[in-house]
Amino acid sequence: MTGAKRKRNAVCRKIQAVRFEDIKIWCMRRLPILKWMPAYDWKENLIPDTVSGMMLAIQQVTQGLAFAILSSVHPVFGLYGSFFPVIVYAIFGMGRHVATGTFALTSLISAKAVERLVPSVSANFTTNNNSGVLGLSEFEMQRIGVAAAVSFLGGIIQVCAMFMLQLGSATFLLTEPVISAMTTGAATHVVTSQVKYLLGMKMPYISGPLRFFHIYAYIFENIRSVQLEALLLSLLSIAVLVLVKELNEKFQKNIKVILPIDLLLIIATSVACYYADMEYVYGLEVVGHIPEGLPSPKPPPMNVLPEVVTEAFGVALVGYVASLALAQDSAKKFKYTVDDNQECLAYGLSNVIPSFFFCIPSAAAMGRTALLYSTGAKTQVSCLISCVLIIVVICAIGPMLYWLPMCVLASVIVVGLKGMLIQFRDLKKYWNVDKVDWSIWVSTYVFTICFAANVGLLYGVVCTIVIVIFRFPRAKTLNLKNVKEVEYKYKTEDNCESLKHVNIVSVNNPLVFLNARKFHADLIKIIQKDSMSSQACEDVNKCEQNTLLCSFSHGSFHGEPLQSCHSERRVLILDCSGLNFFDYTGVSVLLQIYMDCKSRHIDVLLAHCKASLIKAMQYGGNLESETPVFFESISSAIDAIQIHRMRLTAGVGVVWRASWMLTAIC
Amino acid sequence: MTGAKRKRNAVCRKIQAVRFEDIKIWCMRRLPILKWMPAYDWKENLIPDTVSGMMLAIQQVTQGLAFAILSSVHPVFGLYGSFFPVIVYAIFGMGRHVATGTFALTSLISAKAVERLVPSVSANFTTNNNSGVLGLSEFEMQRIGVAAAVSFLGGIIQVCAMFMLQLGSATFLLTEPVISAMTTGAATHVVTSQVKYLLGMKMPYISGPLRFFHIYAYIFENIRSVQLEALLLSLLSIAVLVLVKELNEKFQKNIKVILPIDLLLIIATSVACYYADMEYVYGLEVVGHIPEGLPSPKPPPMNVLPEVVTEAFGVALVGYVASLALAQDSAKKFKYTVDDNQECLAYGLSNVIPSFFFCIPSAAAMGRTALLYSTGAKTQVSCLISCVLIIVVICAIGPMLYWLPMCVLASVIVVGLKGMLIQFRDLKKYWNVDKVDWSIWVSTYVFTICFAANVGLLYGVVCTIVIVIFRFPRAKTLNLKNVKEVEYKYKTEDNCESLKHVNIVSVNNPLVFLNARKFHADLIKIIQKDSMSSQACEDVNKCEQNTLLCSFSHGSFHGEPLQSCHSERRVLILDCSGLNFFDYTGVSVLLQIYMDCKSRHIDVLLAHCKASLIKAMQYGGNLESETPVFFESISSAIDAIQIHRMRLTAGVGVVWRASWMLTAIC
Repeated sequence: MTGAKRKRNAVCRKIQAVRFEDIKIWCMRRLPILKWMPAYDWKENLIPDTVSGMMLAIQQVTQGLAFAILSSVHPVFGLYGSFFPVIVYAIFGMGRHVATGTFALTSLISAKAVERLVPSVSANFTTNNNSGVLGLSEFEMQRIGVAAAVSFLGGIIQVCAMFMLQLGSATFLLTEPVISAMTTGAATHVVTSQVKYLLGMKMPYISGPLRFFHIYAYIFENIRSVQLEALLLSLLSIAVLVLVKELNEKFQKNIKVILPIDLLLIIATSVACYYADMEYVYGLEVVGHIPEGLPSPKPPPMNVLPEVVTEAFGVALVGYVASLALAQDSAKKFKYTVDDNQECLAYGLSNVIPSFFFCIPSAAAMGRTALLYSTGAKTQVSCLISCVLIIVVICAIGPMLYWLPMCVLASVIVVGLKGMLIQFRDLKKYWNVDKVDWSIWVSTYVFTICFAANVGLLYGVVCTIVIVIFRFPRAKTLNLKNVKEVEYKYKTEDNCESLKHVNIVSVNNPLVFLNARKFHADLIKIIQKDSMSSQACEDVNKCEQNTLLCSFSHGSFHGEPLQSCHSERRVLILDCSGLNFFDYTGVSVLLQIYMDCKSRHIDVLLAHCKASLIKAMQYGGNLESETPVFFESISSAIDAIQIHRMRLTAGVGVVWRASWMLTAIC
Repeated sequence: MTGAKRKRNAVCRKIQAVRFEDIKIWCMRRLPILKWMPAYDWKENLIPDTVSGMMLAIQQVTQGLAFAILSSVHPVFGLYGSFFPVIVYAIFGMGRHVATGTFALTSLISAKAVERLVPSVSANFTTNNNSGVLGLSEFEMQRIGVAAAVSFLGGIIQVCAMFMLQLGSATFLLTEPVISAMTTGAATHVVTSQVKYLLGMKMPYISGPLRFFHIYAYIFENIRSVQLEALLLSLLSIAVLVLVKELNEKFQKNIKVILPIDLLLIIATSVACYYADMEYVYGLEVVGHIPEGLPSPKPPPMNVLPEVVTEAFGVALVGYVASLALAQDSAKKFKYTVDDNQECLAYGLSNVIPSFFFCIPSAAAMGRTALLYSTGAKTQVSCLISCVLIIVVICAIGPMLYWLPMCVLASVIVVGLKGMLIQFRDLKKYWNVDKVDWSIWVSTYVFTICFAANVGLLYGVVCTIVIVIFRFPRAKTLNLKNVKEVEYKYKTEDNCESLKHVNIVSVNNPLVFLNARKFHADLIKIIQKDSMSSQACEDVNKCEQNTLLCSFSHGSFHGEPLQSCHSERRVLILDCSGLNFFDYTGVSVLLQIYMDCKSRHIDVLLAHCKASLIKAMQYGGNLESETPVFFESISSAIDAIQIHRMRLTAGVGVVWRASWMLTAIC
């Protein structure tokens, strides 16, 4: 008993040890921070990371405010959204230049849910109904509740559906033209949503398909209610921003630090607004009260989850796609690798965890990542440093943003989208590279404009797949390069030599329902062409052939027609080493080829077949059992023809000394 | 003026002549009867066609009655449906053994529309409300109206959407496992719908998803209302039918004419029913009054068309698929060709035109086509002969079918579906050939059972596509067969020879988003492997290399590290002759390979590129302009390397007499 017990204990200890080791490996794999943090090169990287982090913080604050308003929630939640997801991503993510935080497209999608479930003119709330949290009204808390619910469910989808089902690798379906068109379309939507602030108009929230056109229709109908002061301030801001950013880009190589024009503009206009009292004098819309400090965590309202499923799917997919593209880009540029599925987990968690801290859906933004590149950030530490600065803003500087005019913020958003809108330029590239991709771009853009980003994305993916599916059956499956003619020489007893034709065709495609029919047609064409040429050859070589026929008649010539004796000699070897995978249709086409060739007196031999293919073909059809069909290699197949022929000729009474020479061994 | 006029007249005449010629060709193409009828071999074919036609007529009459009841319309309309579509198909169709007429699956689909729009217990009709047409009630006329509308719209869809948009060729998407599973599932549905007649139960029409299970639940709940007389008669009929058909099949080769057991059974049971007065004594359900003669044509009710769109699509697709498979099968067996699009037109018209004659949707049935094969029919004439016999039945014999018991008719249907139900046997085949196709079969069958034939078909197609899409990115794109190493010799001035490595990789796949990434990875792997082996080679050949390096230092050796001078020599030639088509992703991967190789000091040359690929690559990336990248052939690319090298060495002051020898020319 004690022996057994001891043994059991030892096994237990072993299992525990194994488990501990496993857990450690798993942690290292799932928490990349444990890998990169200890190896961080403080001397080399800290200074560039700090500089980048400061620049990033400025961008995060302005974008946070702007995208919170885009999400139809109070601006302060944008500041939280620039803080929590960044920390979570730094722990779980592998991308070194992936600046997670608020993101225009996900904000746009979650705004749909917010405006549907908690509309602006809600009868249930009086404006001053204080909720007690951060001094914000109950109305604002309801709105952020919906946005946080979208973030929560989107994150859950990313973690469960994408990470656990390993669907992260399905992103190959999202081709560059589709993503480019979708993001351009979404950016157009964002610009459209900011037009009311730029013009200083009051406008109801317009939803539904063709929303884009309804908004512009509304603006043209109410063109008189444009506030000239706001319009002027917007135009001025946009002009300054575009100009300074252009100059920044131009002289970036000479001066390392970029002029934080966003910050300067915000400070300048806020101060001007405060001193000129524009809020009351001109009736300019301003950001308003921003509470100080961090809220205590609270789970998002679970009862609205079923109503935000569509938006959550949109956020999950769009956020994942946009972020992954940036992570892969950074990995490619700086020669490290990211794991698609680990990234999926990181994005999911940086949506789920922050949703408990009143955050709007998050993702990595192209503009911020570009900023990290240009300011020379080395690692995720720059993002963490930006977090420190953002916490300062949240706790101390926030309330000073009261007088920031909305039209200036809108200008910052619109100019920030330049990178996405500029993708229109890609159109020319696609036109020159592939007209089909060009039309996919255009139609995906139109769909995105008319409906929404997720509809456009879905359309683009389906369209790409359908086009490829219809391109495959038209494409050639064999070309002349795949066909080799091998001639080998026979020596008969009378020392007269003869040439045998063996066609070796390499199959280099998978054989599935998409291309199986075309493969059949292509192969038959090759066989027919070959039989034509060999017949032409016959006439020329007649005299030589006669020698051979002579030897036949020397033996026991059974009076068979010459044709059959001749045609019996043709052999087709299919080299299946490149046949990657097959389905039922592919196997039946192969069997049909075998039968077709048999009726034309051509022997078909298959070389380099996988075991599964051999099994499938043996099961699927009635292959002749007497002559073997499958061979390990081409040369063994040719050997077999040789032996078979020798036996045949032995059968009719003549023994040939056979020797063969391959012109080329493949 | 007169000259011009004459000229114009001549042109007009020419145009007219051309047009007339065109019209004639078009007619011959679109009306295949004009081609085959004049060439009909009366002596050879008339007798077998007549025999087959007679056998077919018997089958058509029984199936017509049965499938009309399956369609929830009066049995007489099944007789019309066995007559008109056959004539239309004989005119427009090309398949010689395609027995058009009533079809179980299309009947099942149209029954859905009939029962939804004109339910059995309709308050609007009293049973004896005579409509004046053929002595049938208004209720029956309403029902056939709906079925004819489905047929009409289905035909319009076949002609417009499929024939005009040339979608007939999209049938490659319908793989054998999907069609097999869908037809088996639909046959299961048909059997289910006949169970109430077999058991002699009264049952309400059950619709909706999971209908299949609800029907059996209803039967088990009401198991006591089973009519024992009907059950016994059904079992007896099924036993006789199965037994005689098995015997027929066994002795078919000895006896040419098949025993028309369907007809004999129908006659025998009708007579028995009449003399034993079973309708009243046992309460057995019988077919009832069948009117004599043909009705005058009447367009189907156009106002119900919008309500039967779903069913019309189902009929169009299922009918087309089933019929085309049979036509292609016949063409393959008897070595002629059918034009997919012409067939589309023929099926469409044989739905549209008969819908004006109170016909239910039609298609070619497998059972009847098999009958034509087994009775030795040669051409479409057999179908036309069957029409003559059916018209006799309609005009004279019809009313005698009054006493045919429904349970016998149901037995005929069920046994007639044997061919479809037996496809369960295919499961073993699919399991052995391809597990993936096996699971597609099973899941498509489950979908068809749970929902409907069209849902199952859609699921199957989408599933097949999705699986192929996910199989492509995992498949190897290159194997070692595609890679050739060519060595060519240099002769330096000092007569010391050196070998240069050129890797020739043939691209044999289309390069699209599905496989582009994998191609990139595969190619990089090949390059890395090669650089490893070449480094190993280096150590061995060091002494030889030294000779070469010597010659370098003889000239003007610039003190470059040896590595760069050595690695500069590696060349990769991509043979793009097998690159059938590409998209934007493919081009960008090619460009990326070019850049990657450049960073590894490998020259990439592309041979046999299509003009569109050259244009796309030149546009897409910044290829070096000084060294050419695209070549017409592999040998010209190798020549170019030679010349380039000569120039280089000339540049450093040493002129080498270069000569190269290819071990193999591809």
